[in-house]
Amino acid sequence: MKIGIVGYGNLGRGVEKAISANEDQELVAVFTRRDPGSVKIATAGVPVYHTDKLEEMRSEIDVLILCGGSATDLPEMTPKYAAMYNVIDSFDTHANIPAHFANVDAASRAAGKIGIISCGWDPGMFSLNRLYAHSILPDGQDYTFWGRGVSQGHSDAIRRIDGVLDARQYTVPVPEALERVRKGENPALTTRQKHTRECFVVTAEGADKAKIEEQIKTMPNYFSDYDTTVTFISQEELNEKHAGLPHGGSVIYSGQTGENHHVIEYRLQLDSNPEFTGSILAACARAAYRMNQEGLSGAKTLFDVAPAYLSPCSGEELRKHFL
Amino acid sequence: MKIGIVGYGNLGRGVEKAISANEDQELVAVFTRRDPGSVKIATAGVPVYHTDKLEEMRSEIDVLILCGGSATDLPEMTPKYAAMYNVIDSFDTHANIPAHFANVDAASRAAGKIGIISCGWDPGMFSLNRLYAHSILPDGQDYTFWGRGVSQGHSDAIRRIDGVLDARQYTVPVPEALERVRKGENPALTTRQKHTRECFVVTAEGADKAKIEEQIKTMPNYFSDYDTTVTFISQEELNEKHAGLPHGGSVIYSGQTGENHHVIEYRLQLDSNPEFTGSILAACARAAYRMNQEGLSGAKTLFDVAPAYLSPCSGEELRKHFL
Repeated sequence: MKIGIVGYGNLGRGVEKAISANEDQELVAVFTRRDPGSVKIATAGVPVYHTDKLEEMRSEIDVLILCGGSATDLPEMTPKYAAMYNVIDSFDTHANIPAHFANVDAASRAAGKIGIISCGWDPGMFSLNRLYAHSILPDGQDYTFWGRGVSQGHSDAIRRIDGVLDARQYTVPVPEALERVRKGENPALTTRQKHTRECFVVTAEGADKAKIEEQIKTMPNYFSDYDTTVTFISQEELNEKHAGLPHGGSVIYSGQTGENHHVIEYRLQLDSNPEFTGSILAACARAAYRMNQEGLSGAKTLFDVAPAYLSPCSGEELRKHFL
Repeated sequence: MKIGIVGYGNLGRGVEKAISANEDQELVAVFTRRDPGSVKIATAGVPVYHTDKLEEMRSEIDVLILCGGSATDLPEMTPKYAAMYNVIDSFDTHANIPAHFANVDAASRAAGKIGIISCGWDPGMFSLNRLYAHSILPDGQDYTFWGRGVSQGHSDAIRRIDGVLDARQYTVPVPEALERVRKGENPALTTRQKHTRECFVVTAEGADKAKIEEQIKTMPNYFSDYDTTVTFISQEELNEKHAGLPHGGSVIYSGQTGENHHVIEYRLQLDSNPEFTGSILAACARAAYRMNQEGLSGAKTLFDVAPAYLSPCSGEELRKHFL
């Protein structure tokens, strides 16, 4: 199947790498809103076009993977391209998912195409695990822990403070909280009891470090509800020790059948968040293509995708090797 | 939806308990090949019938959950009842799944019904996790560890030895092997390196314990490939300390995107294997009913079931609460 990528940041590069690992997928082109001449991609021989060219490439692309941000890009981009292509996105602004789903659904249905939204690991694989666990054991509750991993949103928030040159923020689950949930204690946990935040910050010469530390720790929504540590380091140390984008976490479901207790945990330890997320998007592109080939259309999430659609293997192969 | 249970052993009782926890499901009857008068069930007011009565109850039951054994019951039972009802089973004889699937598919299709086979945690939820992981990261390998938990098949094998009155066998993952896999080392592991087997055995007075221990440890297929420990205990101690049927385990997938490594783990810790398995079967009954209502028919596995079908919640509720 022929794939196009829109947007070439970390996630777009992750999708590109995933497509190159999938024998049944071929990258047709990368599309950018920047000057295409300024974008150098990893795959040899594949063109970079301006997004304007998408109007005229419908017959050449089976699925378009949209690698924009959830804040402003995807709410506009996904419905727009859903009217022309099967599309995949990783929309993750939770409160706006119903509206986004409705917009994509209208566009996809009218076009007779499939649009799978919110494909990633959270929302995405973590969501699936919450759903499966609740469906099996209605009497129970789920806990989601993120990290240890880099939060790009929190890192950006620190970078916006005056006197900060660069920053990397790690979200870290509190070990005692994880342990209590894994034991099936079903504790009530506050935000502060679940995660801590570690910040590594590079400042300009002469910056007031005490003031910067105070600004970080009291920042509403981002840090004020957490136990936060701030460590000032040099740009060299940040480049050397904190260049990667690792992430991960656990969905833990603690449920019961009468007096018997059961704990289900789905855990990810990822060296590269954008490459893992990109790999999920590529698998979802396979599902969208096949579901559309079967005549299905409209907006979907991973909840609506029979798992077999994600795999390159046939039903016979799946039953033989994975069941 | 109206559910019937065929077979009332540990698994049948687990399904019964699961149905009582599901507000959208109602147990219509339990069916047995024994004398129905000899079977007392937990749910008040629900009749027990002989399986012969299934011929005449098609209009009263939406889904039939088959709780027989994989060795001799299900290969005959599932195709037979698939010709009359939507059916669910937990068939787990891996080598015979293709033939079983084909038999159920022919019967279900002819009847315009759905038959979901091999619903449990392995095969079942573990299989799903192998499939999802392979679909996301084609470059990697899966490891499955079982336990610590009671293997009923191995316990039965010990009970068949002369001089043994009762026995309980625990399958236990080797901690070092688990740790190496979780670290992403991708080790090649022999059967012996992955699991040990712990046996608690009650013998008849005057039995030759040394000989029994030797017979257990050298039993082909069951024990000879494992490091096995045998502990002789009294019937009282076995009843007191080993009455439960706990189980669990982990599917660990260790994969890479180029130089970056990712570990995905799905882990179960179950107080009661039959109650958890029964809960999966009940969720699959919900899916079978809905898929059939939409006009689908034929044999399926969890690979073919869009996750949303398993949940009592609507698409809107799922996207709002679980995505």
